[in-house]
Amino acid sequence: MGGDTLNEDKRIDMTRAILVTGGAGYVGSHTVAYLLENMGNDLEIVVVDNLINSYRKPGQKKPESLRIIEDMTGKTIHFYNCDIRDVQAMHRVFQNHLIECVIHFAALKAVGESVTKPLEYYQANVSGTCTLFEVMRDHGVHKLVYSSSCTVYGEPQRLPLDETHPTGAGLTNPYGRSKYFCEEIMKDLCASDKKWSVISLRYFNPVGAHPSGRIGEDPRGTPNNLMPYIAQVAVGRLEELQVFGSDYPTVDGTGVRDYVHVQDLAEGHAGALACFNKTEFTGFHAINLGTGTGYSVLQMVAAFEAASGKRVPWRVAARRAGDVAVNYADASLAARTLGWRARRTLADMCADTWRWQSTHPHGYAT
Amino acid sequence: MGGDTLNEDKRIDMTRAILVTGGAGYVGSHTVAYLLENMGNDLEIVVVDNLINSYRKPGQKKPESLRIIEDMTGKTIHFYNCDIRDVQAMHRVFQNHLIECVIHFAALKAVGESVTKPLEYYQANVSGTCTLFEVMRDHGVHKLVYSSSCTVYGEPQRLPLDETHPTGAGLTNPYGRSKYFCEEIMKDLCASDKKWSVISLRYFNPVGAHPSGRIGEDPRGTPNNLMPYIAQVAVGRLEELQVFGSDYPTVDGTGVRDYVHVQDLAEGHAGALACFNKTEFTGFHAINLGTGTGYSVLQMVAAFEAASGKRVPWRVAARRAGDVAVNYADASLAARTLGWRARRTLADMCADTWRWQSTHPHGYAT
Repeated sequence: MGGDTLNEDKRIDMTRAILVTGGAGYVGSHTVAYLLENMGNDLEIVVVDNLINSYRKPGQKKPESLRIIEDMTGKTIHFYNCDIRDVQAMHRVFQNHLIECVIHFAALKAVGESVTKPLEYYQANVSGTCTLFEVMRDHGVHKLVYSSSCTVYGEPQRLPLDETHPTGAGLTNPYGRSKYFCEEIMKDLCASDKKWSVISLRYFNPVGAHPSGRIGEDPRGTPNNLMPYIAQVAVGRLEELQVFGSDYPTVDGTGVRDYVHVQDLAEGHAGALACFNKTEFTGFHAINLGTGTGYSVLQMVAAFEAASGKRVPWRVAARRAGDVAVNYADASLAARTLGWRARRTLADMCADTWRWQSTHPHGYAT
Repeated sequence: MGGDTLNEDKRIDMTRAILVTGGAGYVGSHTVAYLLENMGNDLEIVVVDNLINSYRKPGQKKPESLRIIEDMTGKTIHFYNCDIRDVQAMHRVFQNHLIECVIHFAALKAVGESVTKPLEYYQANVSGTCTLFEVMRDHGVHKLVYSSSCTVYGEPQRLPLDETHPTGAGLTNPYGRSKYFCEEIMKDLCASDKKWSVISLRYFNPVGAHPSGRIGEDPRGTPNNLMPYIAQVAVGRLEELQVFGSDYPTVDGTGVRDYVHVQDLAEGHAGALACFNKTEFTGFHAINLGTGTGYSVLQMVAAFEAASGKRVPWRVAARRAGDVAVNYADASLAARTLGWRARRTLADMCADTWRWQSTHPHGYAT
């Protein structure tokens, strides 16, 4: 930290910046696009991403998602290809920019993979997050929006899931535990030092794409989540959808989830950033981002078929261990505190996904 | 890992080794002493310790606890002054010795400090443990004895505490959470790969010292735990004992804990090592190490006064947040599986502590 004093002078004229870790990924890139589309020029966006889950064209410095966003917005994204666990590289990022707050998306997120590679998940998601916090603290940055998940609730004891529902019990995989551990760590951090303001956004099931169809979800290999799987079946890249369980106590026997448009999530992050100016937002705050409405697998298939005009063949397979029947949010806290409400419909989610998928059958590499 | 192939040949003639992380500390040093006193010469002890909580005499390479053990036993301890988070240094340790299994003590352990420095605790105890596991795996070492704590049980829902009691709920500080997180991570690790054998020893309240009086507990600053506090009052280093709460529903109103002699703990670790040869000990096993009997604060004071012939003045102070009234172990699983039972009495605990404290009023620096 020997360079800090030297940098003080330089910083006076620096533009205020928001650091987005994992900003090249799915929710990260949509949030970056939304912020650039809606912020003034007095704020810059700095992205740190290790690109292990992002596509970059040969010869390019920046990942394709960020290049397209720059093209869409005419603005520059300050990009660092580094891992949040690389302390020295992270210090340089904080020295080079006047970072006011951090939106922390960077994480591994494949539930199934987390079961076979738990150490990798704990190191990336928990150790990495602790390292990020240490670097933030060293640079006097104490405002954080954290990318959490409804998975921290475990099996619902009641529905809808509100933020007072217990967390941490009955988690079935290391991915979910890593998100829960980080929330507990952030609570301890906020209790230890009143300077911290942390908003942990518990996403339900993010789907959809930017309405331009130019950025979207680009999973590596076979998709782990329903919507990209359906989209890849519709575009002919996969043969048929496997529906895991058709005997749940739901409207049609298939699992019900609260799908939320990624553009709505992006707005939620912007809403969280706006809260940091209010004194009541010091400390730790967990806030659900969901629509409050659940749709079954077969309802999703029907909606996607309607939006795309394509058939999505499916067959029933066995239930998956750890899947619950029904899951949806009480999203009223987000309305009260962030002034946020999911505005986009299921038809929007499907139409926007299809616009992206049909023009990018193989994602960014198309 | 480029040196691995080269080392293969060298390793054929290497002595099998046990790696003890945090081996210079309180329970660690007593376990090292016990193993050296009771093992054959076909096994060597390797200690990794960053010495942040240990005394080393100026000009000496090894911490005082290990130097004394070498003197007591006439055997050599292979000592590395490094942090378990230093991946390169840890790789060298595994390259230099034919490590068969690891006893992992290295951790920060002051409950109160963990509340004010949560990141330091999570990094040292959780990230550090994950890094150790990665290095172990890279070197094909999958046998681990973990230094856990009855704190993972949170507030007792029933007594005695057996290993089926829920863990993780109602933990009141980052130290306890870090131990709980590590246990969960080890469960996931064992579930992901059948090669792992992990025995997590949940200590109740370690007290006492080696019967020689030459090694013992040497806390930095004011002791956090009852027994060293009493001992320092008895020896005149501290003025009086504060008794936190005298209105608990116990025999005399003061808190009741299950104190277990550190020499018994050392035997428990040796018992765990012996289990690794049995096939039923693959996977994750949590085992209590306690006596099954609780003593109150005032019973401890009386026993210590009897053993030392010194007065231990005390006064009642307010209850501390997070303290429970009564806590003691069901230690029957350790008896059934490890063949282990705490053999030393409360009088032994006090007499051995006093032998150490009275000859080392200022610990190793005396």
